Formats: sequence, structure tokens, C-alpha cells
Amino acid sequence: MLAEIITVGDELLLGQTVDTNSAWMGEHLELSGIAVERISTISDKPSALVAALDLALKSKDLVLITGGLGPTLDDQTKQVLAHYFETPLVLHEEVLANITAWFANRGLPMLPSNVDQALLPEACEMLPNPLGTAQGMWFAVKGSHQVVVSMPGVPYEMKGIMTDEVIPRLLDRFALPTRYHRTILTQGVGESFLSQHVATWEAGLADRQVSMAYLPAPGQVRIRLSSMAEDRQVAVERVEKEVNAFKAMCDHWIVTDVEGQSIAETLVSGLIGAGKTLAIGESCTGGAMAGSLTAIPGSSACFLGGVVAYSNQVKVDLLGVSMETIQTHGAVSEAVVKEMALGARHRMGADYALATSGVAGPGGGTDETPVGTVWMALAGPDGVQGRVLNFGQNRSRNIEKACLECQAWLLRELREYKS
Amino acid sequence: MLAEIITVGDELLLGQTVDTNSAWMGEHLELSGIAVERISTISDKPSALVAALDLALKSKDLVLITGGLGPTLDDQTKQVLAHYFETPLVLHEEVLANITAWFANRGLPMLPSNVDQALLPEACEMLPNPLGTAQGMWFAVKGSHQVVVSMPGVPYEMKGIMTDEVIPRLLDRFALPTRYHRTILTQGVGESFLSQHVATWEAGLADRQVSMAYLPAPGQVRIRLSSMAEDRQVAVERVEKEVNAFKAMCDHWIVTDVEGQSIAETLVSGLIGAGKTLAIGESCTGGAMAGSLTAIPGSSACFLGGVVAYSNQVKVDLLGVSMETIQTHGAVSEAVVKEMALGARHRMGADYALATSGVAGPGGGTDETPVGTVWMALAGPDGVQGRVLNFGQNRSRNIEKACLECQAWLLRELREYKS
Repeated sequence: MLAEIITVGDELLLGQTVDTNSAWMGEHLELSGIAVERISTISDKPSALVAALDLALKSKDLVLITGGLGPTLDDQTKQVLAHYFETPLVLHEEVLANITAWFANRGLPMLPSNVDQALLPEACEMLPNPLGTAQGMWFAVKGSHQVVVSMPGVPYEMKGIMTDEVIPRLLDRFALPTRYHRTILTQGVGESFLSQHVATWEAGLADRQVSMAYLPAPGQVRIRLSSMAEDRQVAVERVEKEVNAFKAMCDHWIVTDVEGQSIAETLVSGLIGAGKTLAIGESCTGGAMAGSLTAIPGSSACFLGGVVAYSNQVKVDLLGVSMETIQTHGAVSEAVVKEMALGARHRMGADYALATSGVAGPGGGTDETPVGTVWMALAGPDGVQGRVLNFGQNRSRNIEKACLECQAWLLRELREYKS
Repeated sequence: MLAEIITVGDELLLGQTVDTNSAWMGEHLELSGIAVERISTISDKPSALVAALDLALKSKDLVLITGGLGPTLDDQTKQVLAHYFETPLVLHEEVLANITAWFANRGLPMLPSNVDQALLPEACEMLPNPLGTAQGMWFAVKGSHQVVVSMPGVPYEMKGIMTDEVIPRLLDRFALPTRYHRTILTQGVGESFLSQHVATWEAGLADRQVSMAYLPAPGQVRIRLSSMAEDRQVAVERVEKEVNAFKAMCDHWIVTDVEGQSIAETLVSGLIGAGKTLAIGESCTGGAMAGSLTAIPGSSACFLGGVVAYSNQVKVDLLGVSMETIQTHGAVSEAVVKEMALGARHRMGADYALATSGVAGPGGGTDETPVGTVWMALAGPDGVQGRVLNFGQNRSRNIEKACLECQAWLLRELREYKS
């Protein structure tokens, strides 16, 4: 089954908005066994949508449109589709009631243009959107197996309709092959090195009807193993066997095999599961490490707090680092970062503490301590350890990679302690 | 002048990579007076590029292609273009020397596929890429005014070639109208309210040949005023006049009129300019406020440090908040957030301190203190002030908006103090 995605909106062409919808849809369609062959981004002009539809329906089985369903005058997708499929707009009482309730719940006034959002083309199947006022629409093209779907461009509304309405209908109505996949998140190993490490095994995957994708991001590599089969159980067995093989080869680098879970999320649930608490003392990461943990709902169950000790005096006053240690070894040193971790652990009464002190860049580097150098420390019930890495020239990547490295380090420590 | 952007790569269709290039190109072309009418994302297959080129050249003056220029087998853009424009690939000695030096500088081995990157279609004008090994290409379509440009898909390489080579050539070779623009960043006012506030003035802009765009992001709205004219000076005068009119109407909400500068960047340069220092005590923002300041190179000149006081005990032990105040008023209260700001200012010896305590959500809300409630405090030489706002249901937006609100608050305080 071949698909085309059409995203509608002048703001996309003018670069005011980055289109993240298409990538999300591409990934979720592929995981359902549907190949996206083209993504077209077009203006709000009705003629642009007509031309894009004509072109897409020449060769595609499925056309997914996002955008142009808002209440303002520039939003014309619904009118264009009604005209294109030669069907009148009719009032859906149920939709009107939902829209009315939506505005009442938020204490906002309802405008005539919002009432118009309850008008839908008669020939379409309505795809409910509980998260907004514009509904999704499913058109079966007359005399063909083709389908055209229209959804709002607001990402979380589109994702809701895709997950709850579109993908289930596609799986239900078309004889798509079953596709099963698993993802595994690794940290502490580059994509090239990882791929070399598993080369022999990877080379045989195709014969065993499993495909593998590397999904790298700064400081981490997610791998995805998937298989298609008529019989779901066959696909599951193929993939699970390879997941086990990969785990056996790469155990030390694996953070989690929970779909979509981040390193920080894995650490937070690991700490909560172990009943342990964490404190942080950070210099070069400047609050980013605490921020990445507190971004997770429920993190207050394990995260007590942190000190962003950007100046030396704050390292001394709030973390108890000795000024003599700073003067003797420099702020970016093993001695200082260890005292920071010990101070954070002690002063906040935590089971574990992580600390960072480094040169994030672009300025501040020296011959002995070049830009990218980050000292890290982990303090726990058994004492304190220090490590140093160099993450390169880019300030924001240095900060991000140092956070991930520390979090993965504590995660490994927790697992060793447990086992 | 009408343009189409073609982005090439299976990873874009599969959703493994979000296409951020098109938005950047769309914005920069528009600012040069060129309208992007369509963005097409296609697979690595040669036939897909040929079909996309055929379609684009039917109606567009300019076609910009990104991607497919790497050294691996799936990268076919250069071969397809040589075939499409019926021109042989020839070795560029100068490019080969640059590629050889590129690998030598990095101590990496050079492969035969890298040597092939020095082969370029004879009919194209080479657009040098000092940041990578794949060069840009400029094709003048025979017997037409049309131009096809091909660039690598790596964002910073594409941006370099666009800025240094493509846009200057377009401005030089085509009679494009001069376009001048200014942006102004506002905070503390929604897009709808702002637009209502300036409605009369805005309605007259078109007659005065200035156009205005609202570029909203969570917690802030950037506006862009622009004008096109044959004579640059005319466009400059038109826009500057409206910038002054907007400033007079919206002074209180304006953060900065420096192109592209963020609220955090404006605060850091404002503090450094005033010779003042800042400390932070944050609870619900959890390190994000410190992180957004320390993300800025040179912020250590004004930012001393922060305490992420996530647990009540840390509020007491590290910021000197009284446990009695917490027990009497609750952790999310004016009394507590003021003590946090005073404690942060005092303990870190800063001129100013900001503090937050709120319910980021999704859990933790009560009838009196619903999710989204954030108490903020600003302590300075003249004492401490407290404010409360409710930012809504979304955890990450609550954190982001609370940070922006606090930073803009201090920025206004600095300006009032100065004036």
C-alpha cells in the first residue's frame, strides 16, 4: 500500500512552522506496513490542494492531508474536499454539541465560525477529534479502493486521530501484512562502532527476515528490529529472537528496551523502583541535568534537588567544596567534581548524587583542559567515583551528552547494585 | 520569482529525520523576495527525483534540491542531475585537493567513494562547501531563465551554501525587489490580544506598503514587519517608521528588537551591561530556568548559580526557607516563593534572585492550587515581590512559560531601574 502525505499551510512554506507531523506519520505508517512515497507541502490556496490531490491519486492508494481545518478564512481544506468529492456540507448535531461543550468548559465565547466547524461533507466518514474542534474526515474514492483522509494540523490532535481512528481502520479494511517491531536504546557507543560490533549477526538478519534500523541521536543510538509476516506470531518470534541476540552482545550499552522511553525516564523509574533518592551538583551542565529529570511527571518521588554551582563561591558555600581544592586543582578537575558530588549527597540527604564540572565552550578552554572536557562524579553508599570525557566543540551537545552520560552511569550502578 | 524545494531521502519519508531544512530555506527565500510554492519530499530512487524535477520545472523559476550527495550508494542526486542535464561528470582537481585535506585534518582514511565526490557535472557551476565533502551545484536550464540548485542535506552545510553562494547569486542575477524586515519580540501578551491592541494601525499597514506577520511561540510572540521596494532606502524608511509606531503602542510587552535574540539572551546581555549578578531558586521549573541561562555562552559573567529545591527539606536547608512558612502556607505560596528568592539572593551574594514554586502537573493539583499555578518572586536591592499566574495543563509548557515570565520580569525591572 502506497501513501502520500499532503501538508497544507502557508506557514510551512514561509518557514514559520517546522513540519514535524510528516515524520511522525511516516514512521507510524511504516510500522503499519504502509510506505510513504512522497510528502507534499502546499499553500492554503484551494487550487494547490486540488492539484496535489489530482497528482497523488494518480499513483497512491492512500492520501493523508493535514492542516487547513481551522475556523479562520484561510482554512479551506474542508470546502475544497466537499467540492472535490461533489458532496454537500451538512450539519452534524453531535459534533455541534461537542464543540459547544468544548467552549463552555474553557469559558471561551463561541463564534459563528466555530459553529461552521460542525458542518462536514455528507459523503465522508467522520473521525472524531476529542482534543479540538476540527474533526477528521475519511473519504472512500468512488469506483476505486483509494482513500483520502483529512486531519487538523495541530500535532497532538493529528496524532490522536491517527492512533485512534485512521490506523485501526487501515488495519481493519486493508489486507496489510502484520508488522512487529521492538526498539532498544543504547548509550556510550557510537553508531559506527556498534554496527561493527554486531556486523556478523546483522549481515544474517535479512536471511532471517528481520530488518534493522539505526536511529541515532546525540549521545545515544536507538536500534529498531522489525519483521513482516502473514501470521503475527511468526513476526513476533523472529524479532524477539534477534532482540535477545542483540542484548547478549551489547548488554553493557543497553539502557532500555521499553518503546520510546528516554534515558532520564529510565533512570527516574529505576530510582523509584529501587526506593532510592538522587541529588545533583552541576557546574557546566548548568541546570540541564536537573531540568531533564524534573521534566518527567512524578520525578519528585526520587529527585530531591540540585545545586547549579556556576561560580566557585557557590561551589564552596552551597556544596562545601574546599576553596583550597579549587585553587590547587582548578574548578574542572576530578578532586573538585568529587567534592561536589559528596557535598550534594550529604547536604540534601540523598542516596546518590551526580556532579559535573567542565568546559562547555566555546570559550574557556586551555591546553590542559580543552573545550569539551567534562569531569563527572557519582557518589553513593559505597563512596565516590570520578570520570572524565571530552564531548567536542559544540556547547549545547556537550551539555546534553554530559547529562546523558551521568544518567546512564547511575543507571548501570543501580543495576549492578541490584544484581 | 517562484521556487520549489525538493528534499531527497528515504529517512525523511520513514520519519527517522524531521526535515528542518525546508522551513529555514522557506524563511530565507521569502526574506529575499522569493516565494516557495511547494515543498516535495521524495525517496532516494533516481526516478523519483526525475519526476519531481519534471513537475517543478513546469511552473517554477527556481528549484532547490537538498540531500542525496553523500558518498554512499543510496546517494544518487549528482548522477541523476548529470543525466537530466545531459552533461558528463568531470574531476575537479581543486575539490579533490580540498577533500583530501579535509580527511587529513581529521586523521580519517579517505575511501574511493570520497574521491568520487570530486566528480561534478561539467555543465554546473560549483558552489563551494567548506564545511563538508559534497559541493553544491548550480544549473542554468538551457533555453530558459530557470535555475536548479543542488545542496547537501546536512543542515549547517546547506545553510552555509545558501548564505554564501545561492542567495548572493540570486540577488545578483535576478531583478528581485529589495526586501527589508525587522523583528520585535514581545512577552506577556497573547497573539489575539496583541492583534486587537494594534488593530487600527495594522489595518493601515498594507496601504503604507508594509506587511506584518505574527510568529507566536509558547509564552511569546515575535512580530515581523517587512516591505519590498525597488529602492532599498524606501523599504528601510517604511519599515523603521512602523517599528517606531509599534514600539510606542506596545512598549511594555517588548523584550527586544534584536533579530533572532531570545528572552534569556536579552536578560544575560542586560545583566552583563548593567554589571549585575543573578541567582535562582527554583522548584517547579526544576533547573530549566538555570539551564536556559547557562545555555548561553558567556552567561557565567552574570549568573552565579541556582538551587533546584524540589523537596521541602532542600528549600529549608539550602535556601533558608522556614519549615513553619511551608507548613502554614504550603510550598506553592507567595510566602514560600519570596523566602526562596531572598534565600537565593543572600546565600549566593547576588544582586538579583528569581524563584518559582508551582504545580507543573499533571498531578499534584488541588481546588485552591490547581495544576498550572506558579508563584514567582523577584528579589533585588529594593526588597522582594511576588506574583502568581496559571499557565494551564501542560507540564512542559508550564515550565517553559514560568521561565520566560520570570526572565522578562527581571528584564523590565532592570530597565526601570536604569531609566
